[in-house]
Amino acid sequence: MPIRVKFPDGSAKEFPDGSTALDVARSISKGLAKASIAAKVNGQVRDLSRPLPAECDLVLLKEGTPEALEVQRHSGSHVLAGAVRRLYGPDAKFGVGPPVDDGFFYDIEFPGKVSEDDLPGIEAEMRKIVQENVPFVREDLPKEVVVRRMRDMGQGYKLEILKDIPDATASIYTDGDFVDMCEGPHVPSTGRVGAFKLDRITGAYWRGNAANKMLTRIYGLMFHDDKELQAYVTRREEAKKRDHRKLGQELELFMFHDWSPGAPFFLPKGTVIYNELLSFIRAEYRKRGFQEVVTPQLFNKGLWELSGHWEHYRENMFLLKIDEEDFSLKPMNCPSHVLMFKHRRRSYRELPMRIADFCPLHRNELRGVLAGLTRVRKFQQDDAHIFCTVEQIEQEIRGQIDFVNHVYGRVFRMPFAARLATRPPQFLGEAETWDRAEAALEKALKDYGVTYSIDAGGGVFYGPKIDFDMRDALGRPWQLSTIQLDFQLPQRMDAKYEGPDGKYHHPVMIHRAILGSLERFIGVLTEHYGGEFPLWLSPVQAVVLPVTDKDEGYAKEVGAKLAAAGVRCEIDLSNDRISYKIRASQLQKVPYMLVVGAREREAGTVAVRDRKKGDLGPVRADDFLVNLRREIGLSENPAAEA
Amino acid sequence: MPIRVKFPDGSAKEFPDGSTALDVARSISKGLAKASIAAKVNGQVRDLSRPLPAECDLVLLKEGTPEALEVQRHSGSHVLAGAVRRLYGPDAKFGVGPPVDDGFFYDIEFPGKVSEDDLPGIEAEMRKIVQENVPFVREDLPKEVVVRRMRDMGQGYKLEILKDIPDATASIYTDGDFVDMCEGPHVPSTGRVGAFKLDRITGAYWRGNAANKMLTRIYGLMFHDDKELQAYVTRREEAKKRDHRKLGQELELFMFHDWSPGAPFFLPKGTVIYNELLSFIRAEYRKRGFQEVVTPQLFNKGLWELSGHWEHYRENMFLLKIDEEDFSLKPMNCPSHVLMFKHRRRSYRELPMRIADFCPLHRNELRGVLAGLTRVRKFQQDDAHIFCTVEQIEQEIRGQIDFVNHVYGRVFRMPFAARLATRPPQFLGEAETWDRAEAALEKALKDYGVTYSIDAGGGVFYGPKIDFDMRDALGRPWQLSTIQLDFQLPQRMDAKYEGPDGKYHHPVMIHRAILGSLERFIGVLTEHYGGEFPLWLSPVQAVVLPVTDKDEGYAKEVGAKLAAAGVRCEIDLSNDRISYKIRASQLQKVPYMLVVGAREREAGTVAVRDRKKGDLGPVRADDFLVNLRREIGLSENPAAEA
Repeated sequence: MPIRVKFPDGSAKEFPDGSTALDVARSISKGLAKASIAAKVNGQVRDLSRPLPAECDLVLLKEGTPEALEVQRHSGSHVLAGAVRRLYGPDAKFGVGPPVDDGFFYDIEFPGKVSEDDLPGIEAEMRKIVQENVPFVREDLPKEVVVRRMRDMGQGYKLEILKDIPDATASIYTDGDFVDMCEGPHVPSTGRVGAFKLDRITGAYWRGNAANKMLTRIYGLMFHDDKELQAYVTRREEAKKRDHRKLGQELELFMFHDWSPGAPFFLPKGTVIYNELLSFIRAEYRKRGFQEVVTPQLFNKGLWELSGHWEHYRENMFLLKIDEEDFSLKPMNCPSHVLMFKHRRRSYRELPMRIADFCPLHRNELRGVLAGLTRVRKFQQDDAHIFCTVEQIEQEIRGQIDFVNHVYGRVFRMPFAARLATRPPQFLGEAETWDRAEAALEKALKDYGVTYSIDAGGGVFYGPKIDFDMRDALGRPWQLSTIQLDFQLPQRMDAKYEGPDGKYHHPVMIHRAILGSLERFIGVLTEHYGGEFPLWLSPVQAVVLPVTDKDEGYAKEVGAKLAAAGVRCEIDLSNDRISYKIRASQLQKVPYMLVVGAREREAGTVAVRDRKKGDLGPVRADDFLVNLRREIGLSENPAAEA
Repeated sequence: MPIRVKFPDGSAKEFPDGSTALDVARSISKGLAKASIAAKVNGQVRDLSRPLPAECDLVLLKEGTPEALEVQRHSGSHVLAGAVRRLYGPDAKFGVGPPVDDGFFYDIEFPGKVSEDDLPGIEAEMRKIVQENVPFVREDLPKEVVVRRMRDMGQGYKLEILKDIPDATASIYTDGDFVDMCEGPHVPSTGRVGAFKLDRITGAYWRGNAANKMLTRIYGLMFHDDKELQAYVTRREEAKKRDHRKLGQELELFMFHDWSPGAPFFLPKGTVIYNELLSFIRAEYRKRGFQEVVTPQLFNKGLWELSGHWEHYRENMFLLKIDEEDFSLKPMNCPSHVLMFKHRRRSYRELPMRIADFCPLHRNELRGVLAGLTRVRKFQQDDAHIFCTVEQIEQEIRGQIDFVNHVYGRVFRMPFAARLATRPPQFLGEAETWDRAEAALEKALKDYGVTYSIDAGGGVFYGPKIDFDMRDALGRPWQLSTIQLDFQLPQRMDAKYEGPDGKYHHPVMIHRAILGSLERFIGVLTEHYGGEFPLWLSPVQAVVLPVTDKDEGYAKEVGAKLAAAGVRCEIDLSNDRISYKIRASQLQKVPYMLVVGAREREAGTVAVRDRKKGDLGPVRADDFLVNLRREIGLSENPAAEA
């Protein structure tokens, strides 16, 4: 019986029984056969050389595609293991060796000590194996045969894995002199792996359990070609330099202390950024019709039971007893805003009502996952809730998309794309309301011209949502803004307004945040700018550097003038040499350095250095001030535009 | 043996044995005898008619002095009880009847029901007793005699009180037909009580214990004369109208909810005031060299043990377990600021270091004492800590006194006086350091010309302090600002800086707050201004009132122009008549009402109404805006002066 193969373009063709994906590729073109790494058969990625089933959808995975790269990385780990087997002999015992985001690793028990110094030797042996270009051969065998072979090879970790495989068969892959029990799939031959480089060594407990033996984990990087590999290495180095934890310390932006895990202390310079961001968002709120409120942080269990958080979110809340009753530090603002909405009768004339709140929130993240500013237990959001009618949804969503676009498109220059997550299988409310709301959301995205994708079924049970992914200067994605519709909470908490019909209705609630958590956002921003914050956000905007102590009087005069005009300014009165002072300010990434020596003092000028462009030459001090104020107030600080 | 009497002016005179204070008064002048109410004998207030001891300091207490008034008020309660005894007969049982701040009360068990309607009758009977002007006669008797008389009179509550008196004797006072067991002292005769008025009735458990019987408490007001009584009543009515809890609701400034006792929700209008106060203080911080920080709220027990709060303050903290360890929500910022000071090496060049923090604080006040904004569990302070050297204390204190004077003397126009509290009997540190510091504090007060008193021994164990009492528009005192020296915490927590000598020293720490808790301050300010906040603090600065719906377009135009210029502006688009709209805005205490009708629309003007001065006539809309901006930005908002 011939095999019927369906292609991605919808066409179909028949092939003789026993044909492989490679046979199919060859039948189309020699080039395609040469470029293919593996095949997706009925949605499952498999070796090119495996016979196809009687009826299948087939996608040939060509070099350069993400799915092909994942297969290559997996094969890379086998090449690594093969090299180790050759160099360290049969006493090297192998654990697991999967692909990862930037390459692969293998967990290995070495017969002796091994260190980073050994990596070049192992890598050289790997290159030999690649050079040899031996095929990866798959065998599907009864489980007991595989058990026997692994036992003969002394591979105890493989035997442990086999115990957990419920199937009657297991597979073995052989590439040249290396044999491994493995599910696959793999590249056709060792020569077909991507460009690689061994990266580093760490310890890893067998099966991640500290009670087990510590194995040696060798990481390798692998990409499509050398250019991509090199680009990745460069990007990673740059990211390391920009790590907000490192910069946060160097620039004295924030600190942590063991006595308050997961709760950042913003030092004076970090607090300048914090407060400037708040001012910026507040200025937007004024323009966009938001009203700010200040709310309590401790709430009785009764509130959380009503809102549903007690049932669904309790393990993330910090709980305490007050006057013998259960209370929690609030993890989010929504229920308290509903209480404010409900505190008196509301009319449709008051809608849309946009309530904003910067109240600190607390969430009980596991101590182990806390990391710098990106995973914290205490944070403030630029949080707001919009109470509106169903008819107002589209207009409100458009307004919030415009807000996102203003903040990221214009001010922070981070390109973004949206994901519209629609009705999940488990949902509350009427399907018709959902359909209408999703259509409104999509229309708003389309009308505004935002790039978006649909995450079908990815909405929360209480309503559809739009998440925004921003790309930073290194091209890394960060999910920052979010807009969520909620049909449920106003009903659960019985929030109502009087409509023009004289009857009471539940409003729709829109949860939204533009920056998200300010803590996390400052972490992202620090890396996005590599610490070189734009002028309006810079903790110190200008520093005056007297050349000798004779120039200190004039330096103070210039500094006082700048400070009085609202510029954040420092004066370096240390005894260091001017070249050292410049270097120190440059390391602090101060936008403008104003060198003042005898010449400047006499002429009433400052010698301006820009942190990026270097020396800009002498300018009259008063002119510099006028220009600086204009630059802070008008060109870069959107908060001051109004 | 004659009695030797010493007078307040230092002179002394002898009188025959058995002389009373009244005899002494008469010997000086008839007028003095007539004006005296009671006497202070060796520091104790007693009846004028009691014989004096052999040797004594004597002060005659004349009508119109606070101590005389207290005696009059006490006698007033007896006059009340006597009137009740006449009207309700021997079945009226008497508890206690002390003087209070504005008069007196008596707790009485009535034979039947009694209500506010009965007060005029009781008061009329009291006036008769006063008219009769019968003397108060004191008898000092063996306790068993008093017990017998009270038992005969059926006065069970008096018997209970007698049980707790350890002395062998007790005293009885008789005024006409009324007999009461009482310690005294009293006025010479019923005609000598002050101007009075029965005030109100409440219930009161016998001895304040809910397990006991509920008695009826009748309150009376009593002052020196009718004028003072009337002034008090008027002031109290005004205070009631200004009650911030009432105004807070009427002006929609804030709300409370049972699910978060003691934690105010600031509604949008209250939040405007909140944020304007923060901006105002921040602007002062910039001028005065403070650096703001943002800090965690949850801290491990370890911190509180080190700071001493775990031992001395634990019952005021909200405690919770995190990862099996004890944590608390912070009740104050000081220890966390020391952690920030310590996070890296510090040099004397960095001192004085002024660290400001608006972090929310939580204190576990008893639920029963929570009251509006003045007694809360969650609040934010304009808190700051200054780390400095001993030599810098005087200059720093002077700077903070100047800050207090600017805020209260210039901006809020609340007169204030200072209290310098000095070394208590139990103190830590060197007496010499204390002496030096107290001298520096006093010198700063004196140099600045602040009115101050000395509270000898009133300092805290860790250092001397200055508290400031401000008077509001009704003349009521509020303790708002405080400046406290602290020699201890930096030592306990081992905070150090490197001195010019290359050695490490502990800095002095100054705890200070100008507004104090923002919550409480907003409560005080609301009452101080009676809700008529100055323009820069007003939640709505101007409201546009179209006369008919034809004027709505123009009203929106005017409103939009104001809003774009940064004015907080509303437009009343209701269908109400213009007179009603004006009344509503007046009740909301909006500084400017801009009426726009056909005439204004055609002329491009607005008819301006000032909330205090009324109609100001038509002004061109653009001119009004210019003037308003100037008034907001320059004349009243000191934050915008820079």
